[in-house]
Amino acid sequence: MSKAKKIFTMEELIDIVEDKLDEYMVVQQPEDLFKSMRYTVLLPGKRLRPVMCLETCRMLKGDIEKALPTACAIEMLHAQTLIHDDLPCMDNDDFRRGKISNHRMFGEAVAVLAGDALLTFAPQIILKNSEALSDECKLKLLNEYHNYAGAYGVIAGQVIDIQSEKGEIKDNKNEILRYIHLHKTADLFKLSIRSGAIIAGADDEKMAILTEFAEKLGLAFQIADDVLDETSTFEALGKTPGKDKYAGKLTYVSLFGIDNAKCKLTCLFKECYDIMNTHEFNSQIFIDIIEGIKKRVKL
Amino acid sequence: MSKAKKIFTMEELIDIVEDKLDEYMVVQQPEDLFKSMRYTVLLPGKRLRPVMCLETCRMLKGDIEKALPTACAIEMLHAQTLIHDDLPCMDNDDFRRGKISNHRMFGEAVAVLAGDALLTFAPQIILKNSEALSDECKLKLLNEYHNYAGAYGVIAGQVIDIQSEKGEIKDNKNEILRYIHLHKTADLFKLSIRSGAIIAGADDEKMAILTEFAEKLGLAFQIADDVLDETSTFEALGKTPGKDKYAGKLTYVSLFGIDNAKCKLTCLFKECYDIMNTHEFNSQIFIDIIEGIKKRVKL
Repeated sequence: MSKAKKIFTMEELIDIVEDKLDEYMVVQQPEDLFKSMRYTVLLPGKRLRPVMCLETCRMLKGDIEKALPTACAIEMLHAQTLIHDDLPCMDNDDFRRGKISNHRMFGEAVAVLAGDALLTFAPQIILKNSEALSDECKLKLLNEYHNYAGAYGVIAGQVIDIQSEKGEIKDNKNEILRYIHLHKTADLFKLSIRSGAIIAGADDEKMAILTEFAEKLGLAFQIADDVLDETSTFEALGKTPGKDKYAGKLTYVSLFGIDNAKCKLTCLFKECYDIMNTHEFNSQIFIDIIEGIKKRVKL
Repeated sequence: MSKAKKIFTMEELIDIVEDKLDEYMVVQQPEDLFKSMRYTVLLPGKRLRPVMCLETCRMLKGDIEKALPTACAIEMLHAQTLIHDDLPCMDNDDFRRGKISNHRMFGEAVAVLAGDALLTFAPQIILKNSEALSDECKLKLLNEYHNYAGAYGVIAGQVIDIQSEKGEIKDNKNEILRYIHLHKTADLFKLSIRSGAIIAGADDEKMAILTEFAEKLGLAFQIADDVLDETSTFEALGKTPGKDKYAGKLTYVSLFGIDNAKCKLTCLFKECYDIMNTHEFNSQIFIDIIEGIKKRVKL
């Protein structure tokens, strides 16, 4: 049965993604390496990024079956960033999504290598499972992947984030915080949404609008995360709360306070809805994502 | 001036590669990240892998200009493996190629991220600088890259190597040593030689022969490395010698002794020359590489 035209609920898309991830992350040799990769990819999660990829594709009348390998690859990339972020030399976190973090489970060496392996495994998933896409489309997707995953994307954000934790950032804190949020968080949102749009064959104008939308949603997501780090519990977060504050980390809340953070969130969500309305992006799922975040931070 | 038809010496090819690496590794933002990436990529080295890529391309009548971005990308990947291998949770080495290792110079967090960044930067170099190659050829190259760089390639070897260091390997030591050498070392030789062949448009038969040749040369190179670790000095190696022995690591020498290692080397080099002669691979550079290794281990 083709999934091309059907409109799925968030829960249905999550199920589709999780089934496929389970299939892709089958344990091969070397066993410890694949077990470690599989462990973090399959940790319980909201699968926000692959869902956004699939939903964008559907919204633009694309076939979500064709987007499924890429959506899963982006979730693998996301898992890679979590594994390396949690390492003792980075955030040194023992928990992730309510479970023991990768390096605590498999040891630091295997965790570093599992992250490395996911970085190359993810584009292989796109390359090996996208027979339905043209060579040009595959190359575009790989270009997006490497651009947002690498030194111009997520990793740029992570480096500056670490420097901010060490108290190395003294000036232009506002600007630098925006840089961290843009790269560390919004870039994966952009990758997800842009990849879905590429597979659906979106034109440059649509790509530009969707990129702006992804950026605002990503920034909002990170500010919400900063708020939750201060106000939430271990049970609700699945990781140790209050760590940012304790680490003296540069966050939206540490810089502007909770009230201003919530105000900024309201603003960003309004802008997201404005874009959706102006450009007739009919998506219950993006509404659910936005309302879900609002609910979590009690907006 | 086109470099397509000219036969270069090893030194000339090294210069071409180093000039291009210098150009590709220009420091961008975030500065610390790019400085760290650049540092290890530009450490003094023999540039064996990119040279093999270019020379294979030339040997098969391909245009080495077209292979240069890929050759450089492979050197970046090699640098990535060095950065992560040297980390405290891996081999914990303070020196590399006679200089301070990356994490000692830039800190562990930046070193982990610089490695990650190189893993995605390298394929971007191929994607962005290969206008002269067809889409199909680019996809083939990326497929090779991700295959040999990842969980089926170098990383597989590294995981088992680390387990062997921890004394976790009790049985089938011979088989496991071969697995480590095949993946940790020979896979990058295969990637280099196969990529040069792909760019030159080699057929399946040639690819198979060259893959066999790359495997034998890679195995020989690693066994020579094992011998040198026991017999050489810091000055000659550029890294701490005797570490393998001290770490109780599984090496060809620890398993079979120096004499058998040298005997195996003689054998492998003979097989390399046999392949070259049978299939009329006319390459002074591959001869220079083999003779260079023989000289270093006093064969």
